[in-house]
Amino acid sequence: MFRNSHTRMTALSDGVFAIVLTIMILNITPPKVINWSKIEQLITELSVYFISFGVVAQYWIFHQELLSHLKRPPTKFLILNMYYLCLVCLTPFATTLLSDDLFSRFNTIFFAAIILSVDFVQFILFRLAIGIWQDRGITPNLHDLEEYRSTIVMFILSILYVLTAILFPPALLIIIFAGFFIRSALSRYIRRRAEQKETSSKS
Amino acid sequence: MFRNSHTRMTALSDGVFAIVLTIMILNITPPKVINWSKIEQLITELSVYFISFGVVAQYWIFHQELLSHLKRPPTKFLILNMYYLCLVCLTPFATTLLSDDLFSRFNTIFFAAIILSVDFVQFILFRLAIGIWQDRGITPNLHDLEEYRSTIVMFILSILYVLTAILFPPALLIIIFAGFFIRSALSRYIRRRAEQKETSSKS
Amino acid sequence: MFRNSHTRMTALSDGVFAIVLTIMILNITPPKVINWSKIEQLITELSVYFISFGVVAQYWIFHQELLSHLKRPPTKFLILNMYYLCLVCLTPFATTLLSDDLFSRFNTIFFAAIILSVDFVQFILFRLAIGIWQDRGITPNLHDLEEYRSTIVMFILSILYVLTAILFPPALLIIIFAGFFIRSALSRYIRRRAEQKETSSKS
Amino acid sequence: MFRNSHTRMTALSDGVFAIVLTIMILNITPPKVINWSKIEQLITELSVYFISFGVVAQYWIFHQELLSHLKRPPTKFLILNMYYLCLVCLTPFATTLLSDDLFSRFNTIFFAAIILSVDFVQFILFRLAIGIWQDRGITPNLHDLEEYRSTIVMFILSILYVLTAILFPPALLIIIFAGFFIRSALSRYIRRRAEQKETSSKS
Repeated sequence: MFRNSHTRMTALSDGVFAIVLTIMILNITPPKVINWSKIEQLITELSVYFISFGVVAQYWIFHQELLSHLKRPPTKFLILNMYYLCLVCLTPFATTLLSDDLFSRFNTIFFAAIILSVDFVQFILFRLAIGIWQDRGITPNLHDLEEYRSTIVMFILSILYVLTAILFPPALLIIIFAGFFIRSALSRYIRRRAEQKETSSKS
Repeated sequence: MFRNSHTRMTALSDGVFAIVLTIMILNITPPKVINWSKIEQLITELSVYFISFGVVAQYWIFHQELLSHLKRPPTKFLILNMYYLCLVCLTPFATTLLSDDLFSRFNTIFFAAIILSVDFVQFILFRLAIGIWQDRGITPNLHDLEEYRSTIVMFILSILYVLTAILFPPALLIIIFAGFFIRSALSRYIRRRAEQKETSSKS
Repeated sequence: MFRNSHTRMTALSDGVFAIVLTIMILNITPPKVINWSKIEQLITELSVYFISFGVVAQYWIFHQELLSHLKRPPTKFLILNMYYLCLVCLTPFATTLLSDDLFSRFNTIFFAAIILSVDFVQFILFRLAIGIWQDRGITPNLHDLEEYRSTIVMFILSILYVLTAILFPPALLIIIFAGFFIRSALSRYIRRRAEQKETSSKS
Repeated sequence: MFRNSHTRMTALSDGVFAIVLTIMILNITPPKVINWSKIEQLITELSVYFISFGVVAQYWIFHQELLSHLKRPPTKFLILNMYYLCLVCLTPFATTLLSDDLFSRFNTIFFAAIILSVDFVQFILFRLAIGIWQDRGITPNLHDLEEYRSTIVMFILSILYVLTAILFPPALLIIIFAGFFIRSALSRYIRRRAEQKETSSKS
């Protein structure tokens, strides 16, 4: 009767994501007096906010796909999902740190390290989900494998972010912004190629 | 097996809306000492809060109608919804900015620009939803078209807000407050006229 | 296709309630140094927190009963529910204000006025829900009428709170605390009497 | 028609858990200047955060199992669940207090007392749930009894935490961290033994 609940795992995750997405803006204090230096600072803070929002939004899009068909999740999956959420919760903190000083090596490394950790646990979660399906006799389809490959691409990109943060901190945000498009372009490319394969194999 | 989830898109959106509606009050610091100037300030801040709450509540009412029948949303819809939520998240920030100085041109333009952006993305979302239905062979009914037209009315009204903020900042809140009733009166009028048409066409 | 969603109305309401219940504790700043005056202040703040939590928790218990069977809510119900949530959102603010000074007439009246407003809108919501049912041909049962009567009792009690806040501010919290038990005792009494009636009318 | 809703009880609980898990990080202010003493402080605060996250995550895992099959919860269960949530809401506050001074007797006792209270109410909730099932003619299975026993183990461990906080405050976090593994190892052990029993009784 006491059983793991798929509904509640998704509800808790959505709650955490909703708060993380929203509180990042809370850390920006509205300027009391308006002058150019304040507006410049506001633009920087809003840019960091938009990029962080994009990063977390991307996590959510993967996360909602991940859990969509995982009824009766085993306890170890629930626990790993908690580790994942714990790391996602750190992103607003890392965002504020980055907002404070975009050029500090410590702050950029901290930010990149959080992204690396989330991407790593995300990859493990996808691996585990596919493993659970296979145990239950379900073979992943082409789309599933693409999504799984995407999480590997994200993990590799995040290693690149950490290296950028170590070697040339000021470039981090630009690399993340670029990486965002690279990944989505890459996954779109993989998707199309797979669709072509599927069509050609059918005919 | 990895699939976009309608349930989770609505859950995340409701989470974000719930937080946005609630944190707007957090930015009002309760006065430590009570005197007339403090009470005056409190009344101003509460008025801005009520109007902002009304604006976001209206967004939510449209948003819940928008998603009510969009099972298996395509990824581009999910991403556009994220842009929408990102802009909605900016409203508490814009509200605090406006609360600080109701007569500042910068603050009022910022507030009006956020409303304009949200209204624009909302309009695109409704357009996209109708497009997705038509691709799936569903023709929108009269009520759907009215709601769609309402989002156009809202978008046009928000252009008016930006103009007000540029030309005569102090009038912004009053115009928004009035616009709120104008839109709901207008859409009620359209609804009734459409119902009359439907009745007359049936008979 | 664009239709009001019962699921989303409850999801948004639960989100707002969850945040309101949680942020009330955020306003208590943990003491940096521990001494008797600090501990005394902490006990006061925690007492106010517990009572406010009780008040909002009671609202939630009524609210979840209210919406449990109201599929396809009309737009006017959704809008009234928004007014209700807007007022509920003000409770953490009123709680902080009360925490700051338990004996200030302004602060206690503000707190009592918020409770009065919520209780009033809650009563209107219950009235409206029963009206909607009757329009759809459903007659409320004994339990429904008791709950409806309970909201009237709550509204009358809240008038008493406002009077207390005006006449003798320091007694407000004690009266609310007492009123909490009075109402639950009263409704338990009404419930039992109704059950006895039902049993005797059946036999 | 007005009826207690299982869906809403879980939705509210998940909302509260999501916020509690997320706001614990909000209380850590990102250092403005980076030096060794700041990094040391940051590591301490993050360690306390991770342990608190673990404690609350564990509560959630038990809570989602608890409610998974309790359709139409009686009002007394809803009220007890509210007491539970009220205490869970206090954990971020206790965490901040502990973060401020890991060696203060007052702060550690406060933290341990909150854990003790949550564990106690959790135990009562599990007891009540089993009681409600039995009233409805459902006998708890082996797994249910193990989970119930786990809540007793957690309660006993939390008494140990309070004693540690009184006798030797600096050891509290280590004991909690250890207790976390002890409990999960113990429950895994009980689970396996029960499975062996079940297998042997079947053959």
